[in-house]
Amino acid sequence: MVEVLKSTFEDYLPLIERSIKSADFVAIDTEFTGLEKSAKERTNLFDTTEERYQKLKSSMSEFTITQIGLSAYKKSDKNSYTATSFNFFLYPPIFGPLDTRFLVQASSFQFLCKYDFDFNKFVYEGIPYLNKPQILTVEKYLHSKAMFQGKNRSNDVDEDTLQALCSRVAEWLVKTEEDQSAILEVADEEIPELRHVKSFILRTELKQRFKNIWINVLDNEQRVVQISKLNETDKKGDNITTDTKEDRERLLENLKGFTRVIKMLKGGVPIVGHNMLLDLLLMYDKFHKPLPDTCEEFKKNIQKMFPCVYDTKHMCNTNRHLFRDSGLLENSSLGMLYKNLSSPAGQQFVIDAPSVVHASDGYKDSNRPHEAGYDAYMSGFVFLRLAHILTFLHVKSTEVRPCRFSRYMSELKPYRNKINVIRGSINHLCLDGPDPQSNRPDLLFVQSKHPSFQLHALQLVRWFSQHGTVDIQITDPRRALVATSNYYCSNDILKAFRSHDKITVTKYNKWKHSPVFRRYIWAGAILSGGACLLALLSSRKKN
Amino acid sequence: MVEVLKSTFEDYLPLIERSIKSADFVAIDTEFTGLEKSAKERTNLFDTTEERYQKLKSSMSEFTITQIGLSAYKKSDKNSYTATSFNFFLYPPIFGPLDTRFLVQASSFQFLCKYDFDFNKFVYEGIPYLNKPQILTVEKYLHSKAMFQGKNRSNDVDEDTLQALCSRVAEWLVKTEEDQSAILEVADEEIPELRHVKSFILRTELKQRFKNIWINVLDNEQRVVQISKLNETDKKGDNITTDTKEDRERLLENLKGFTRVIKMLKGGVPIVGHNMLLDLLLMYDKFHKPLPDTCEEFKKNIQKMFPCVYDTKHMCNTNRHLFRDSGLLENSSLGMLYKNLSSPAGQQFVIDAPSVVHASDGYKDSNRPHEAGYDAYMSGFVFLRLAHILTFLHVKSTEVRPCRFSRYMSELKPYRNKINVIRGSINHLCLDGPDPQSNRPDLLFVQSKHPSFQLHALQLVRWFSQHGTVDIQITDPRRALVATSNYYCSNDILKAFRSHDKITVTKYNKWKHSPVFRRYIWAGAILSGGACLLALLSSRKKN
Repeated sequence: MVEVLKSTFEDYLPLIERSIKSADFVAIDTEFTGLEKSAKERTNLFDTTEERYQKLKSSMSEFTITQIGLSAYKKSDKNSYTATSFNFFLYPPIFGPLDTRFLVQASSFQFLCKYDFDFNKFVYEGIPYLNKPQILTVEKYLHSKAMFQGKNRSNDVDEDTLQALCSRVAEWLVKTEEDQSAILEVADEEIPELRHVKSFILRTELKQRFKNIWINVLDNEQRVVQISKLNETDKKGDNITTDTKEDRERLLENLKGFTRVIKMLKGGVPIVGHNMLLDLLLMYDKFHKPLPDTCEEFKKNIQKMFPCVYDTKHMCNTNRHLFRDSGLLENSSLGMLYKNLSSPAGQQFVIDAPSVVHASDGYKDSNRPHEAGYDAYMSGFVFLRLAHILTFLHVKSTEVRPCRFSRYMSELKPYRNKINVIRGSINHLCLDGPDPQSNRPDLLFVQSKHPSFQLHALQLVRWFSQHGTVDIQITDPRRALVATSNYYCSNDILKAFRSHDKITVTKYNKWKHSPVFRRYIWAGAILSGGACLLALLSSRKKN
Repeated sequence: MVEVLKSTFEDYLPLIERSIKSADFVAIDTEFTGLEKSAKERTNLFDTTEERYQKLKSSMSEFTITQIGLSAYKKSDKNSYTATSFNFFLYPPIFGPLDTRFLVQASSFQFLCKYDFDFNKFVYEGIPYLNKPQILTVEKYLHSKAMFQGKNRSNDVDEDTLQALCSRVAEWLVKTEEDQSAILEVADEEIPELRHVKSFILRTELKQRFKNIWINVLDNEQRVVQISKLNETDKKGDNITTDTKEDRERLLENLKGFTRVIKMLKGGVPIVGHNMLLDLLLMYDKFHKPLPDTCEEFKKNIQKMFPCVYDTKHMCNTNRHLFRDSGLLENSSLGMLYKNLSSPAGQQFVIDAPSVVHASDGYKDSNRPHEAGYDAYMSGFVFLRLAHILTFLHVKSTEVRPCRFSRYMSELKPYRNKINVIRGSINHLCLDGPDPQSNRPDLLFVQSKHPSFQLHALQLVRWFSQHGTVDIQITDPRRALVATSNYYCSNDILKAFRSHDKITVTKYNKWKHSPVFRRYIWAGAILSGGACLLALLSSRKKN
């Protein structure tokens, strides 16, 4: 694993580019500052695709990426792949008019604490990035005379430094003959990128203030410049624009930062992630454009950006029933999938599964879950292992052979561009075609039998979540809707409450029941329950 | 200086309380996550008091405090004060339904970087706090059956830990006779406060799930409990509520965290800050209640909270003219004031100025500007020195004597409860009475002389800011308004542009000019300029 920071980004860029350009596929993962902007954006089983998109859009456009992981997998040997993993810290760009405000969900930062996230690296050493409107803003700003005037400048350069420098130049000009020169140190920053920005700003400022000087950068590091006092003839020439174009372009490249890596990924290399809907939304919003108004537009545009995407959580969920006995895919969390698929059982489930070698140390002997680079590596591993297993699942073991990556690709077509959706009315999005029909059971309709018995969401959660994952929406004191995650759960509930003394539970019939709701706004808080209580109950049943 | 973290907060509380209760005054300072929510909230010279309040309210309610400093000053000797300084890291509370979303302005975090702010301490070790509505929410939650159910719980305790614990208990119950007991470790956290919360949640959860157990905490550290299997008779007793009241109260106290320190400050001890309007707004919003709708309400309520407040920036700005020769108050930034007033010249300006001794090491030999504890200390120092100087300014030096703190207090009455306002239409807020009349000059009205010459804010800033600090509002292509910070600037501009070929500049006359604007919405972006360019120009003039 290579950790990439603001101070080392430019140095690693060639390695990053080589790794991506030669990769068979690139696995990605992001860590970010929050999940839900407010309770209103909490997702639930009632969500249609469009509702879900709007909720996620509303949240993700306000949160920001703290870390992004790339793991470039390349077949290196007959039956072995090399994973070159990078872990990037990112921080929103600050330059001129760009000064991002981002939201933090307190519990999301706390979650990162559990995995030893370094918030100092995030803020001090986060690499910048720009989406298209931001690039335009910077370009416009760099070309306008507004540059570095007024309050905006204070983000980029210390006013005191600027004043001191200008005073020195002013004094020098007074006591100096025309055509004389002097050497000036304009930047003392330790971090090359900052030094470059600062030097550029200070030089531009000097040129704008003093019409009778000529500035020449003396060293590659942009620390030192030579200033010369012009004579009357030279003054008329427009020296202000002489050498700033190259400067501007270099500055813009610096500010684009991680966006340059995203450009490398746009070549069509397969992109792999685990439960990657949020990753895609964030990458679109931060590195491409603000998220579009509709889910359809998003699907269309993200496909142009990344035409070939695989979500390992979807691949796992779709095939879980095939592995019931082995339990290999029982738990579809990334950590458990990686653990199970990299175990001897996972290794031997189908013979000749390709092995994975780390290109560098760092992840060789250590588990770093929820570090973006490590999660990207695990996603890639899970993808490769699943690819092998699914390719040869129905092939006689005597006929299994190490194969080319392209064989996997053709076998995995059914999973291409299908992105997992958690706890929604459909279980995946299809980026390159119509979304699937909902495979959730019908909603359940709950009614209190007696006017004196009022429904409470929490009570219903207690009752129903014993049978599985449910979301409850109280619509009025005597009526409620229940969304369940699968038919087992739905049928269990119907059966269990068939002759309950307080409530009736029936399948929701929109012709019969919806008039009841028309009078009410569907705004009741949705209460969720499930997995945990269920797990306990099953453990008690066993005893 | 004492650094106070989540893990050490309870230990330091007695010292903090002693220091505050015995102090003559307490200086405060806060560091926070941002200044302006968006460009709309940018403050300018056009702002009325109410407009300013609304802008600051809108921003400060979304940002959060990262660090708060207290410096308790106590007269310890004939002419010497002891400063006991505390530097607290704060982080928004996360518990049950409380999960704050806070905004970060990217440049504000970058600003903190310049002063070596430790973001890891902020997130990992920030002390929680609760305002009144949050206390109610927690109390309600602790008393409701909703506790620790559904998604909220996952913020406080790891679901896997919970599952494992419950499974162990379930297994144990099956194989155990009634009236038997077992020892159970319920919390392994290193940090006492987290351990306490976790232990509490796990015990509550166990009680809710298993009706036939009795739980008894065995150690002070709340790590270990004894569970007993109840017999049929005992089961009918309501064991769930037996020992949780004390638990709940202790938990609530833990969550209140820094709010308990604020309560100590409410006793009426004079509170000192430098340019403290934002500090007061933040402290009100985070520790008391969400900011009220109007500035008048805020003033009334903050007075109830802190009846005696001094702002050293206001004290300095009001008296600067008296110190023109010495230059002591020339620069009213906290760092420069401290530097000047602690210099030999500041020390000797009025004899017998009391000295300040640090109660502990930490700040003795080091400058830590923009660390809240250090800024609080500096504010206190500046306050004390100004108090002495202003008290004896017009007293013959032969009659100057070391004096009681109460003498300072009576001399400083004119500054009591007056809070500095930067770059607004008035220069301070008066918390305990009507605000002062605006002392800003009238607005200037700019008109282009020829239809072909359109006004551009940037051009006007360039022209006018040579004369001082200005804010420009273009109202239509040929007209603009200019707010200036003082009469010198305003008069200079009027003089300089008296016979300009492109524009006329006159004092704004609301009878004559406002009809012109009625047709336009005053929504043009306001462009600011000033100090920096001015400084350069004056340095050139000198030459």
